[in-house]
Amino acid sequence: MKGRFITFEGVEGCGKSTQIALLRQHIESRGRAVQVTREPGGTVISEAIRELLLNPEHTAMGSTTELLLYAAARAQHVHERIRPAIEAGTVLLCDRFADSTIAYQGYGRGLPLETLGRLHELAAAGIRPDLTLVIDVPVEEGLSRARNRGRSDRLEQEALDFHERVRQGFLQLAEQEPQRIKIVNGIQSVEDVATAILGHVDALGV
Amino acid sequence: MKGRFITFEGVEGCGKSTQIALLRQHIESRGRAVQVTREPGGTVISEAIRELLLNPEHTAMGSTTELLLYAAARAQHVHERIRPAIEAGTVLLCDRFADSTIAYQGYGRGLPLETLGRLHELAAAGIRPDLTLVIDVPVEEGLSRARNRGRSDRLEQEALDFHERVRQGFLQLAEQEPQRIKIVNGIQSVEDVATAILGHVDALGV
Repeated sequence: MKGRFITFEGVEGCGKSTQIALLRQHIESRGRAVQVTREPGGTVISEAIRELLLNPEHTAMGSTTELLLYAAARAQHVHERIRPAIEAGTVLLCDRFADSTIAYQGYGRGLPLETLGRLHELAAAGIRPDLTLVIDVPVEEGLSRARNRGRSDRLEQEALDFHERVRQGFLQLAEQEPQRIKIVNGIQSVEDVATAILGHVDALGV
Repeated sequence: MKGRFITFEGVEGCGKSTQIALLRQHIESRGRAVQVTREPGGTVISEAIRELLLNPEHTAMGSTTELLLYAAARAQHVHERIRPAIEAGTVLLCDRFADSTIAYQGYGRGLPLETLGRLHELAAAGIRPDLTLVIDVPVEEGLSRARNRGRSDRLEQEALDFHERVRQGFLQLAEQEPQRIKIVNGIQSVEDVATAILGHVDALGV
């Protein structure tokens, strides 16, 4: 059985976690090996980097530092977990990957896309998602959901227009790579979002 | 008064810390503003990254991860501390900088020097040492001193031939940039090493 790498993207509060859990159950019910992971994170070292990145006290963090830490977390994740899982034939569901870096650091913070691309090349070492699902919700809606969960880490405290640029970044990426990146309307019911996602996953032949 | 950026390099146990402390006292005694910092480290965020890097439990760390973490620590250090200090006219003494990355990750681990150069460009954002002092000691001598201090972090546990490649890396860098990089014989007495260093610092016009 061929391994698959499926990534979930979208602004804060778009509903990724819920949908990943539902898709995992669904794939498991078909008897396929499935794992869930996230970025930044997914390994002990990458989770430690995640803590650094999301620590609300780290307001002095420069944008280049942030970018390099995301890349470091990804390099470890790819090396220690993503590549081995795919090679073992697992369906690996990942909460955020390369497109988040481009949307947040590129479109959001304005860092040069060429620099981001080179860093990603170094960190991902040839690993590319088979399918990327962007769950699209209006920024206000997503942030309000995230706030209701009681979360307000460093990124979620950013200004609204930053998150709007991020959302537009995801939409532009989907336009550039329509084969890989699918936009799912995230303001439908949880069940309808799940059905839309399943359609794309089935088209992939998982 | 023009700020100065002076970096200290060399294999583990070469005597950098002792010499940095002596040079600091000397410059202070002349009434100049002087600060000491180190890489990886020098800021709260960079010190947190340092802890990740040197944690002996992190044996699963890939070489690309390591490289990106060093670059992240440097980016923050340059942004938050090195550039402001130099602009304020301070003499900044730094324990390790770019040349350690090239010696350890390039010559030591065999990562491509071109990749290292690009990452350094991104992290250092134009900051370059005015003077770099490589305190040269045979690898066995340095490691034995480091062990006697009771230290044995992740890097110091590496094989002897790794450290030998690192030492040769420093020597080659000094050959390539003789104006900036000065080799100081580290197996003389502490006082003689200090005198040699002071000669180079005075030639810089500090």
